[in-house]
Amino acid sequence: MTTRLFGFAGGDAGRWQVLSMNTLAGEPLATARAIDVLEGDTCQTQARRWVLRGITSNERYVTREEKENLVAKQQGLGRPQSTCAAMIPLRKSVDWWALTQDERRKIFEDQSRHIAIGMNYLPAIARRLHHCRDLGPDEPFDFITWFEFAEADMAAFDEMLKALRASPEWQYVDREMDIRLRLA
Amino acid sequence: MTTRLFGFAGGDAGRWQVLSMNTLAGEPLATARAIDVLEGDTCQTQARRWVLRGITSNERYVTREEKENLVAKQQGLGRPQSTCAAMIPLRKSVDWWALTQDERRKIFEDQSRHIAIGMNYLPAIARRLHHCRDLGPDEPFDFITWFEFAEADMAAFDEMLKALRASPEWQYVDREMDIRLRLA
Repeated sequence: MTTRLFGFAGGDAGRWQVLSMNTLAGEPLATARAIDVLEGDTCQTQARRWVLRGITSNERYVTREEKENLVAKQQGLGRPQSTCAAMIPLRKSVDWWALTQDERRKIFEDQSRHIAIGMNYLPAIARRLHHCRDLGPDEPFDFITWFEFAEADMAAFDEMLKALRASPEWQYVDREMDIRLRLA
Repeated sequence: MTTRLFGFAGGDAGRWQVLSMNTLAGEPLATARAIDVLEGDTCQTQARRWVLRGITSNERYVTREEKENLVAKQQGLGRPQSTCAAMIPLRKSVDWWALTQDERRKIFEDQSRHIAIGMNYLPAIARRLHHCRDLGPDEPFDFITWFEFAEADMAAFDEMLKALRASPEWQYVDREMDIRLRLA
């Protein structure tokens, strides 16, 4: 059985070399030169600059039809051509979490087309979403999304992020980092 | 700021005296004579028979209209007349978690009337729902619900549970304990 819990450890050396770290909203993370993605409990992780944790979970917004479309098109992490990655830790505001499910779904998809936008970039952009908010009361981010793609798809990835960040959903984002990586 | 993280510690002595512990599905918990509800991180908790953890979170199913109706009628924990409590740790099956949001909502409310049933017992039955599933990959339950009510409302509470357990949603419950308590 594969674990649902992952650690993202920023330090001086590691599997993924940091190309850039941009702070789009809120407090920045300390600069790291490389990131390792660790599986399972990270309590024993040796000293790094920082370790963020996230857990994969059930989907919160997709309908059955959307899920089947996604599953038919998407590919997993770890493809040989995926030499580029991006790590986007993100927090949403108190206002977002006070919305009800129907209100969040309306903003997420009816208004912002979050699922539809992502679909346009499959299978080129592979992603894994990790939830942090319910790991404990003091997590610095609500989500960490890890993306992998080929170097040739970097422009497409930027285009996708631009569309998402222009959407109404992003008005609820109050902390966001954009960390770009390449296999070391 | 109040914490979102709670610990439920079963042992020999504590604030809530255990009247009964029934296993409705799955593995039983070890017998405890009393339970304490602890706030925040429970890592430093002194030895007990067991400690279950849960975290309050955003609502997953209610619509705005349902939420407003609930908020208008519900009352909080800790009322002086609430000398009785029940703790219901519960796990849902892999099949439940593989459903999409729209499918889960249909079973939860359209078919099972979970929200509507609970509404019938407000304000007599107070409740706080704690999520466990995304605290980590190895939690023994997915949810812990803590209920408080007056002794006179015990029959109403039993009636509510009977209705919920007879609903299609409960076909997805694969572990459930029902622990009844009285202020010690």
